[in-house]
Amino acid sequence: MSKSSKGRYFEDFEVGETLVHATPRSITEGDQALYTALYGARFAPQAADSLAQDLGLPAAPLDDLLVFHVVFGKSVPDISLNAVANLGYAGGLFLQPVFPGDTLSAVSEVIGKKENSNGKTGVVYVETVGRNQVGEVVLRFYRWVMVNKRDAASPAPEAVLPELPEALTPDELVAPLDFDPAALDTALTGSPHLWEDYAVGEKIDHGDGVTIEEAEHQLATRLYHNTARVHFNQHVESQGRFGRRIVYGGHVISIARALSFNGLANAFFIAGINGGRHTNPSFAGDTIYAWSEVLESAPLPGRDDLGALRLRTVATKNRAAADFPLLGEDGKTDPSVVLDLDYWVLMPRQG
Amino acid sequence: MSKSSKGRYFEDFEVGETLVHATPRSITEGDQALYTALYGARFAPQAADSLAQDLGLPAAPLDDLLVFHVVFGKSVPDISLNAVANLGYAGGLFLQPVFPGDTLSAVSEVIGKKENSNGKTGVVYVETVGRNQVGEVVLRFYRWVMVNKRDAASPAPEAVLPELPEALTPDELVAPLDFDPAALDTALTGSPHLWEDYAVGEKIDHGDGVTIEEAEHQLATRLYHNTARVHFNQHVESQGRFGRRIVYGGHVISIARALSFNGLANAFFIAGINGGRHTNPSFAGDTIYAWSEVLESAPLPGRDDLGALRLRTVATKNRAAADFPLLGEDGKTDPSVVLDLDYWVLMPRQG
Amino acid sequence: MSKSSKGRYFEDFEVGETLVHATPRSITEGDQALYTALYGARFAPQAADSLAQDLGLPAAPLDDLLVFHVVFGKSVPDISLNAVANLGYAGGLFLQPVFPGDTLSAVSEVIGKKENSNGKTGVVYVETVGRNQVGEVVLRFYRWVMVNKRDAASPAPEAVLPELPEALTPDELVAPLDFDPAALDTALTGSPHLWEDYAVGEKIDHGDGVTIEEAEHQLATRLYHNTARVHFNQHVESQGRFGRRIVYGGHVISIARALSFNGLANAFFIAGINGGRHTNPSFAGDTIYAWSEVLESAPLPGRDDLGALRLRTVATKNRAAADFPLLGEDGKTDPSVVLDLDYWVLMPRQG
Repeated sequence: MSKSSKGRYFEDFEVGETLVHATPRSITEGDQALYTALYGARFAPQAADSLAQDLGLPAAPLDDLLVFHVVFGKSVPDISLNAVANLGYAGGLFLQPVFPGDTLSAVSEVIGKKENSNGKTGVVYVETVGRNQVGEVVLRFYRWVMVNKRDAASPAPEAVLPELPEALTPDELVAPLDFDPAALDTALTGSPHLWEDYAVGEKIDHGDGVTIEEAEHQLATRLYHNTARVHFNQHVESQGRFGRRIVYGGHVISIARALSFNGLANAFFIAGINGGRHTNPSFAGDTIYAWSEVLESAPLPGRDDLGALRLRTVATKNRAAADFPLLGEDGKTDPSVVLDLDYWVLMPRQG
Repeated sequence: MSKSSKGRYFEDFEVGETLVHATPRSITEGDQALYTALYGARFAPQAADSLAQDLGLPAAPLDDLLVFHVVFGKSVPDISLNAVANLGYAGGLFLQPVFPGDTLSAVSEVIGKKENSNGKTGVVYVETVGRNQVGEVVLRFYRWVMVNKRDAASPAPEAVLPELPEALTPDELVAPLDFDPAALDTALTGSPHLWEDYAVGEKIDHGDGVTIEEAEHQLATRLYHNTARVHFNQHVESQGRFGRRIVYGGHVISIARALSFNGLANAFFIAGINGGRHTNPSFAGDTIYAWSEVLESAPLPGRDDLGALRLRTVATKNRAAADFPLLGEDGKTDPSVVLDLDYWVLMPRQG
Repeated sequence: MSKSSKGRYFEDFEVGETLVHATPRSITEGDQALYTALYGARFAPQAADSLAQDLGLPAAPLDDLLVFHVVFGKSVPDISLNAVANLGYAGGLFLQPVFPGDTLSAVSEVIGKKENSNGKTGVVYVETVGRNQVGEVVLRFYRWVMVNKRDAASPAPEAVLPELPEALTPDELVAPLDFDPAALDTALTGSPHLWEDYAVGEKIDHGDGVTIEEAEHQLATRLYHNTARVHFNQHVESQGRFGRRIVYGGHVISIARALSFNGLANAFFIAGINGGRHTNPSFAGDTIYAWSEVLESAPLPGRDDLGALRLRTVATKNRAAADFPLLGEDGKTDPSVVLDLDYWVLMPRQG
């Protein structure tokens, strides 16, 4: 038996089985500094201990997406090393803030699988749960990936399709703090606009564009312990479908989130990810822009300090977002669109 | 009103107004590690807790220029997002060492403005002050930038020109420690040359050259929360004046400072920045060299442990600095020169 | 006398002299985070405090090779700034784990020198010792480098050739912990294979390949305070032998070690480096693969929790390692091979 793993194929997944992912990872101020250098994120509670403490947190928590990427990355060697495509996410729920020094571990349960009609690939559904060092769940999400079969001749298993939530409801969201909105200094947080100021249907162009470099997305993806080969190996990818390394989709999510500070500076926390599609691949040299639409606005049950906004953030490549590109003339997703993300953020309410 | 900011134009600045910059930023060991990876700075007190403690500091402070870049970066969204050019710095004074864990915030006062004769742009003068989490001023500096007018037809305001110091005087400099020079081990600090060994007029070639990469200057500039667009967006800059992203001028300052270790290893602290000009833009692929001249040497009032050297450090691109390039045959700044920096450093005196 | 150093030439080394290297360097969680981003290392004790503590360590130690690179880097300005080639390593012994916050310093003794028959260069042998802030030796190794003479006319010194160990013996290795193997959770460490499972002669293909970027190797090499010019200066190297910057050989060692997780996940610690050859230079754009062979397996005297494996890890560029490339048809090292490393690792034994 070979001691090095080639990753799991479609046949290797059993519905109901639990996969304990190696290796737990302590996340430190160093990781957060790298995250800042990679994306320039400036949301107040994550940027400054003093602002976090004003909000009732013990210190600046790690960026929510850094937590997401690390938990996701942990699952890659067991779930998606042979994935043809990451098809979707659902029900991503952030349950606890994570602080420098915490250690994250991850476990996935296989909750469904279905062979594709071509007989060569299948779709595997998993629920992945990330925990901190005292066992508290900090994040859980569902995802489904298209995975190669080891052997096209192996028989199709019985299809098991899980029921996945279309979107999280506001009462499911967990707010990580309990603070006095009067303590909020919007000069320091970067915007006067609070939860009440955002209207459903409102669209915001986030303005700036940032060009991706190979070294940047590789540093990011390794930081997350994500080992998917397409991101790192130009020797193989030069012969592949695109001739180039593909940027980890989560890298684009983090770029878009950082850009969204300009227009959504008080969207302090990501509370949930309802769904996301990487509609086109991104490559080094691409310049990423982003715009957002407010899909829904909801108070949080029992809270008068924070409200929830359901946002759609769309990232484009090599096309400014001032005209909110999404669909092309043919009614299909415009080729410039690389990300269509549906998520909940928490924002302070007027005091 | 749009919720995303396009930055302030010349008309938007009022002399006398105070701009509170978002977002305060906690700086950690992670930021210092990135600074090391970006520049390779090796000055002893910042490199090793043990050496800092030998000098009477509680721990290794952050690199002075890391502090400068973060305070500067905080001011960019409010001051220079629409800047055509950073015209100059003056009176930059470092007042307190900053340590990992400190949180920096910044405020600027508009101290002057004058429309240019072309009617399309104007010059704005600001004083920017950086503070730590207990409100102590750690750094203040003046800078002036050329900013676009929103509307060329808007009338010129009354010109207000502030009086700026040509250079700091030695008695203004603040030494961050009080130590016994006999405790100094120059084998560990990297050079036997102390304050008395440097003569006014002496020139030093710092020898090495380092090539800038796009990923490096982008990581650096984002680390400083500097959002100026010309550094990040190849999609736009490919159509711009240079066809390329422009490297943040402060990145070149930090490269030159790190190179200057070879010849100025005991220049432990930057105490003040008298002035600086970015005489030509730098781009990825450029190789930066540096040389320095001692402009002035002064004891520090009341101190026999440290002396001050006023230095001119000149950085060049794609040309070695062994012959101290500065002016071309036409008497103008040589096109290879990218930085001409005038600053005070503090260096131990002989015991 | 010039205040900037051009580095030492062959004539400058005296057998028996001790070189105290500047500047000691505190290594932090930030450095470890950068190391993770640069290589994606996932070995359990270094990745997670919780796993390190399960093994009886107070916290996650720094990666062994990060320690090696920093100690090595400290020696570069004094030993190898004018080196033509790093000819070899021997007797590298790791004696103490290093933790975030520790400060490393380094001293080298010149233990041999011999002029080459061409009269232009010579070989210098040194023993380099790295210590932590309380003076404990954490690492020592021998290396020899080919150094230019300042003046080809200077007479050849008497040749002094040190006796160097061909390989460390298992009884010399130092295990940094004392733990109960029953506490080991191999689901979390990434592999069920423990010391007893590896047979002498067994070869393992580590599978993945990673492409090197200029920004990555420069960030790494600066992080280690390694100032060797060939890694940083494209302006000079464009006129040099290869037309390109050469990647620091240690960067390739760290890539190979990180790749070796896939097949050797429980090789928790590098205990010794018997020898290493950089058989060909690597450049940005090269994709590095690796394979390993078990050369020797030995229990550790007095220990039933850990065993030692002597490994040969070979790294290739732009050629997959599935067929274990090493020698070409002509019996010489294959041109794709860039590293041939002989070292001891420590691995848990079955409980």
